Amino acid sequence: MLVTVTLNTALDITYRVPRLVPHASHRIGEVSERPGGKGLNVARVLAALGHRVTVTGFAGGATGAVVREGLGATEGLVDALVPVSGATRRTVAVVDGTTGDTTQLNEAGPQITAAEWAAFQETYRELLASASAVALCGSLPPGLPVGAYALLVRAARAAGVPVLLDTSGEPLRRGVAARPDLIKPNADELAELTGSHDPARATRDARGRGARTVVASLGTEGMLAVTPEGRWRAVPPGRVDGNPTGAGDSAVAGLLSGLVENLTWPQRLTRAVALSTATVLAPAAGEFDAAAYRELLTRVEVTREGGAGGAARTATS
Amino acid sequence: MLVTVTLNTALDITYRVPRLVPHASHRIGEVSERPGGKGLNVARVLAALGHRVTVTGFAGGATGAVVREGLGATEGLVDALVPVSGATRRTVAVVDGTTGDTTQLNEAGPQITAAEWAAFQETYRELLASASAVALCGSLPPGLPVGAYALLVRAARAAGVPVLLDTSGEPLRRGVAARPDLIKPNADELAELTGSHDPARATRDARGRGARTVVASLGTEGMLAVTPEGRWRAVPPGRVDGNPTGAGDSAVAGLLSGLVENLTWPQRLTRAVALSTATVLAPAAGEFDAAAYRELLTRVEVTREGGAGGAARTATS
Repeated sequence: MLVTVTLNTALDITYRVPRLVPHASHRIGEVSERPGGKGLNVARVLAALGHRVTVTGFAGGATGAVVREGLGATEGLVDALVPVSGATRRTVAVVDGTTGDTTQLNEAGPQITAAEWAAFQETYRELLASASAVALCGSLPPGLPVGAYALLVRAARAAGVPVLLDTSGEPLRRGVAARPDLIKPNADELAELTGSHDPARATRDARGRGARTVVASLGTEGMLAVTPEGRWRAVPPGRVDGNPTGAGDSAVAGLLSGLVENLTWPQRLTRAVALSTATVLAPAAGEFDAAAYRELLTRVEVTREGGAGGAARTATS
Repeated sequence: MLVTVTLNTALDITYRVPRLVPHASHRIGEVSERPGGKGLNVARVLAALGHRVTVTGFAGGATGAVVREGLGATEGLVDALVPVSGATRRTVAVVDGTTGDTTQLNEAGPQITAAEWAAFQETYRELLASASAVALCGSLPPGLPVGAYALLVRAARAAGVPVLLDTSGEPLRRGVAARPDLIKPNADELAELTGSHDPARATRDARGRGARTVVASLGTEGMLAVTPEGRWRAVPPGRVDGNPTGAGDSAVAGLLSGLVENLTWPQRLTRAVALSTATVLAPAAGEFDAAAYRELLTRVEVTREGGAGGAARTATS
């Protein structure tokens, strides 16, 4: 069983407006809402790939009830969210129909008490006992210690469960020091962690800080993986236009599923880039286009980098 | 028992941001939410004035549950909302801390079925049997006939219950033709109803269309009342700066409470202007400043207008 952890789950609300005009009043014709937070998004993609996934983290209030209802209706997901007294946060994405741009309003999340954090850790340890891999995803809600992810990484390692960490800032810095198996920073997160804007140098530095493998997602330049088995770069075929929301979460799902399926690194990266690109192409934010995904699996280019022999093309499918 | 009708109740959410930047991402530190929709706001002010008020209309979904929970916690309010299968709408007010301006995002509301509308009408007729007065407030949710308020006005008149209508557009036009006792349009609503931007002419025209009394709220110029007993203008003392959200609803509460307390027109207008002004002055949108209200009661100026003798000052307190 795969496990994803979303400590700051969200009810993601999308409003479409013809044009967003500050200080004006807008009547919203089209409203959509769905369970959100990075770990939930990852879980949904994993479920779409045919994996059974247990989802944990915190949920509370009326918004939390809506999130749980949505999870319950998704095939392949098991709800192991821990109830809290505060209300699950909302995120509001206002999509401007004229420019296509999105204005994002993200609530901070509920205040988590020490007792709630203790209850979560107990649930987490129970889930680790039967987990094949775990992904720790997203921001921390108010009240949690900044070293929360470091603690969860250590618990996973102690239980012998491969652990992927996808967060940012100080929680990422602390978490990396606890030696996770895999981190998947984007360019900004990687630069913030290491102080370097050079991906080759920064990925090396991140490994030096404790991450066993670093897969950096570099937008249109694809992904750069620095692993104990070598370095690879994976790029999508040509430029892709669309909504990048959720592309990183799809990449995490690709990497995690590849890990438990014992795929080679080139195969894992191909899957991650194909899923990520198919997410950008999908009309609904955070969904992936299944047909585009299957087609992209044959077109992602993976190149081995570094080593004595320099770059060499690797067959992946 | 006073009754207020809010067919399109809302969960009013307020986000404070240092500055609203379109197409950027904003982390919301301060979130507040409360039951909304004009009739609910009117009821809350009436309750604060010491009246017992029954609140009806529609509520549904997780947002509707939060609205009902909020109502249940408010002293003096009786919840007679009719459950619907759709979800009560949200309104999101984004307050820009730099300019103080508000950007408003208003969901349209749930689709009301014919059966739900029939269930509401039954509840409404039962409430009329013991109502001292009724206020019909705000927009119509999707699915209701545009003549919905006209029908509710007629039912109130048939039951001998004084009825105040506070809405806009075509529902106001149809509702006025059903001869309500009182309408309280603002300048824009009055102009849209009558085609005239001259308040004196427009209020006369609105009476000609069927409203027994018209009280026009004219912002900083106070209120103009055209009644079977004469015409009055009521103005606050000097210019008032603040948030006008809910000022109109407070005015409706002033007029409705004045009606059932058998106050004179000058007294009712004094109360309406004082409440409305005290609402603009309150720090929280839609609340009124009780101390300012009491003080304003002695300082609102009411002037009798028109007639053979022209304007004459009227003592009101």
